Amino acid sequence: MMASLIEETVQETESVAFMNLALEQAKLALDSLEVPVGCVIIQDQKVISSGRNRTTETRNATRHAEMEAIDVLLQQWQKIGVTTEEVALRFSTCILYVTCEPCIMCASALSIIGIKEVYYGCANDKFGGCGSVLSLHTKSSGKLTSDGISKKDFNCTGGIMAAEAINLLRSFYEQGNPNAPKPHRTPMPQI
Amino acid sequence: MMASLIEETVQETESVAFMNLALEQAKLALDSLEVPVGCVIIQDQKVISSGRNRTTETRNATRHAEMEAIDVLLQQWQKIGVTTEEVALRFSTCILYVTCEPCIMCASALSIIGIKEVYYGCANDKFGGCGSVLSLHTKSSGKLTSDGISKKDFNCTGGIMAAEAINLLRSFYEQGNPNAPKPHRTPMPQI
Repeated sequence: MMASLIEETVQETESVAFMNLALEQAKLALDSLEVPVGCVIIQDQKVISSGRNRTTETRNATRHAEMEAIDVLLQQWQKIGVTTEEVALRFSTCILYVTCEPCIMCASALSIIGIKEVYYGCANDKFGGCGSVLSLHTKSSGKLTSDGISKKDFNCTGGIMAAEAINLLRSFYEQGNPNAPKPHRTPMPQI
Repeated sequence: MMASLIEETVQETESVAFMNLALEQAKLALDSLEVPVGCVIIQDQKVISSGRNRTTETRNATRHAEMEAIDVLLQQWQKIGVTTEEVALRFSTCILYVTCEPCIMCASALSIIGIKEVYYGCANDKFGGCGSVLSLHTKSSGKLTSDGISKKDFNCTGGIMAAEAINLLRSFYEQGNPNAPKPHRTPMPQI
């Protein structure tokens, strides 16, 4: 009982520490006038990749933090000659910490690569693919149970430091999203 | 009536011509031992981007033909300084021809960038995001109707040269998918 409690506390401390690193990435995004979402990928308690939203810089609306972190990692692995089979094996031991619930595209990508587990901060009510709009991480999603696809399910836990993640998003939208359509744009305060 | 018939025939001839180009991309993938799926992006009746599956080469299971074509195009547009607003405007006039129905990840990506229209060859029964498993191109998908997201719907027509697309996939799997788990692998015929 005591051992189990200690284990839970260690897990919680770890989650907070890694989510803090994901939040750091989100802050970097905010500094670059990007929607502030950030993430890190963890293997054996070590950060092996990180990413932040780069949709403005690239003009590519699909360059979400998760896609960035996946691509950076795979480019590294490709350079050192990691085989396709080994890539799948490695991802099955990786944990993603991301400040906001993965969208449908990212949740599907995480399922395709076969990530082990995802921890996220705040929910993504409009586009979330891990429970909010669709549940692409679970077997129960559409026909995804059939034909061995269930092995690509991943564990998913939300609400880790959600307030911090929301505060960053709020800062972004309050200061005026430079990509928002003009009629909805909040003017920058003149000091 | 006659004018409408001529219009339909022209549209059909165009669809076949562009799908043939997508099939050429799929053949390039096959030649490189990749799952043979290819696509082209069309604007004003001209090919402005193309892509093919590169999952084996990159060891990145998310590098589907559509993601490749989107990224290539956006890199070009970024280089010549196309603004984020203009990118959205341009995509709203673009048509994608792809040999196989976009998967859930790609359908979601196409919805995010706001593509105008998609024509695909064969259906993707296991992973299809444009009708087979989920219908991410339509308003009726989950909560995607709310809050202005419906503008990211796109028209989608399947079954264009489906037999040719299926034949390429069949060739790939018959010659033995080099990435398939070993017990299921079909041995290459010894000549």
